[in-house]
Amino acid sequence: MIDARGPEFAQVLERCTVLLGTLFQTRNDILVFPGVGTGGLEAAVVNTLSPGDPILVATSGVFGDRFARLAEAFGVDVRRLSIPRGRAVEPEQLQEALEENSDVLAVLLTHSEPSTGVTNPLAELAPLVRERGHLLIVDAVSALGAVPAQTDELGLDVVIGGSQRAWHMEPGLVMLSVSERAWDASKRARLPRFYWDWRHAKNTPDRFLAPYMPALGLFYPLENGLHEIDEEGLPRVWERHRRLGAFVRAGVIARGLQLFADPAYASNTLTTFKVPDDLDAGALRERLAETHGVLLGEGQAELAGRLLRIAHLGYTSEDEMRSTLDAIQLAIAAERADDPT
Amino acid sequence: MIDARGPEFAQVLERCTVLLGTLFQTRNDILVFPGVGTGGLEAAVVNTLSPGDPILVATSGVFGDRFARLAEAFGVDVRRLSIPRGRAVEPEQLQEALEENSDVLAVLLTHSEPSTGVTNPLAELAPLVRERGHLLIVDAVSALGAVPAQTDELGLDVVIGGSQRAWHMEPGLVMLSVSERAWDASKRARLPRFYWDWRHAKNTPDRFLAPYMPALGLFYPLENGLHEIDEEGLPRVWERHRRLGAFVRAGVIARGLQLFADPAYASNTLTTFKVPDDLDAGALRERLAETHGVLLGEGQAELAGRLLRIAHLGYTSEDEMRSTLDAIQLAIAAERADDPT
Repeated sequence: MIDARGPEFAQVLERCTVLLGTLFQTRNDILVFPGVGTGGLEAAVVNTLSPGDPILVATSGVFGDRFARLAEAFGVDVRRLSIPRGRAVEPEQLQEALEENSDVLAVLLTHSEPSTGVTNPLAELAPLVRERGHLLIVDAVSALGAVPAQTDELGLDVVIGGSQRAWHMEPGLVMLSVSERAWDASKRARLPRFYWDWRHAKNTPDRFLAPYMPALGLFYPLENGLHEIDEEGLPRVWERHRRLGAFVRAGVIARGLQLFADPAYASNTLTTFKVPDDLDAGALRERLAETHGVLLGEGQAELAGRLLRIAHLGYTSEDEMRSTLDAIQLAIAAERADDPT
Repeated sequence: MIDARGPEFAQVLERCTVLLGTLFQTRNDILVFPGVGTGGLEAAVVNTLSPGDPILVATSGVFGDRFARLAEAFGVDVRRLSIPRGRAVEPEQLQEALEENSDVLAVLLTHSEPSTGVTNPLAELAPLVRERGHLLIVDAVSALGAVPAQTDELGLDVVIGGSQRAWHMEPGLVMLSVSERAWDASKRARLPRFYWDWRHAKNTPDRFLAPYMPALGLFYPLENGLHEIDEEGLPRVWERHRRLGAFVRAGVIARGLQLFADPAYASNTLTTFKVPDDLDAGALRERLAETHGVLLGEGQAELAGRLLRIAHLGYTSEDEMRSTLDAIQLAIAAERADDPT
């Protein structure tokens, strides 16, 4: 039995915090809460904003939309930059939106948008926000660890990640990096908060204590997963994902299918392809699961029935992806044979 | 790999929900969120209240105080009925407070208060609240399953429980039962909410879907733990705890120590005893952990240094408790031998 308030757990929390700093590429504070990604978005909003504050949300899919709806639920004045599904937020679009909305306090960006398979060009977008002095909040839940976070290099004020994304771990913990500027904003922010109040999760070198009753069983897999990433080395991890992303996209095209996401901004952790017009996406997905044991994500919201999603995050190998792609090809042929039109 | 949006997980969620209904003793909706107990308290507050709403919080310890501070953080007008530490909320005290605060919309009670080892007499308190028509919200995180919840019998509108309390499980999921009256209140409630919005976790017989990315790895231990409780049978589980509580309290007294909590309302899941005046609570606790492998809870807030807490929830046996009590006796003797005064 582990004492959630004792020295042993404090050391686990401290080691996780240090490793998370490496993963986030930051010297900013790292806060860990029991909960999932959406809770991290809520924490970012309620700790930095006041009712009526204008913000800009650049949304390229379901997760960006959720970010916007969440902020609206808290009475924030949300201006949306809505990007057509499958496209990335381009620097010119963001620049224009920032010029039209020069009064915003904060800008919310989604790094990788899992509903479309797009990774937004953070390194080009962040400077546009920072040079205007807006607070920059980034939802990195879907890609953290697999692609560079560059938190300090790009001056990201709040970055949100989730425990499931470091690959050998379970969902159930959400973590944020918080810059000095973001802490300053939190002192002025008047949105009501308690559970997600950053002050409850703030640690110091002398004191590592989780807020509330920590989800103890999730911290050990978290520490193990972070250690494995650390041992492999982040540049190697990123390169592995870059190559795997290219491999999957080439494989999709080679099998006569069309990519859904703009290839210039395709995510290296998740690939989307269009379901051919003569096929039913649900039936194809079901056949893949039942006959081949291959689990693909379905299209969400307005993309339901239009695309399927292949995840290749973490320790996925090229061999596994080759099998997945072959299974997709076989399942499509079988669907067509069953229901010739 | 489990699909969080697929039929297999939906069945796990449905089975857990049914078993939780048995545990809560209710036909009300059961909502499950990723997070811990404090999040359930926040969910109860933000879904039923509006800024400035008057409520009464009867607090007999740290967890009741937290409930009050949380509601205040959301701009609710909190009236406190503060009970001296170690005592329970007595029906006459609640009656008086309700008469003085007849305008309150809701009353918040803590069932078992783990900071003092008191279980408040819910069966006597609830009718006083219900006959006046106030919404009744109960923090049952610390005792759910081990003592009767009587949710429907007592007309409890919102009851909050946590996954760790069904004994073989991990913290990381929080669940609430929500009555029709509470749903009605949620339609009028204007406090801002998103993550904890009850509508996101509402399921129907045709549709079991977790809100956001569920903490998948926590649901399987939850289901197993709930099954074990169900097989033993709730009346037997309660009786086992009742006997174990009496056993521990008698053992504390037999070893010449004084109980901290009022014996008339002592909790059957956690026993507190006063640290003798000549001893240092921290040193005693440390010796117990290091020499005997016995982990006791320390006194919290104003009770720091004054008491220690023995947990006996779940599958704790009389033999284990006898060893724990013997270890306490030995450690006290050793402390006195080391530092004779």
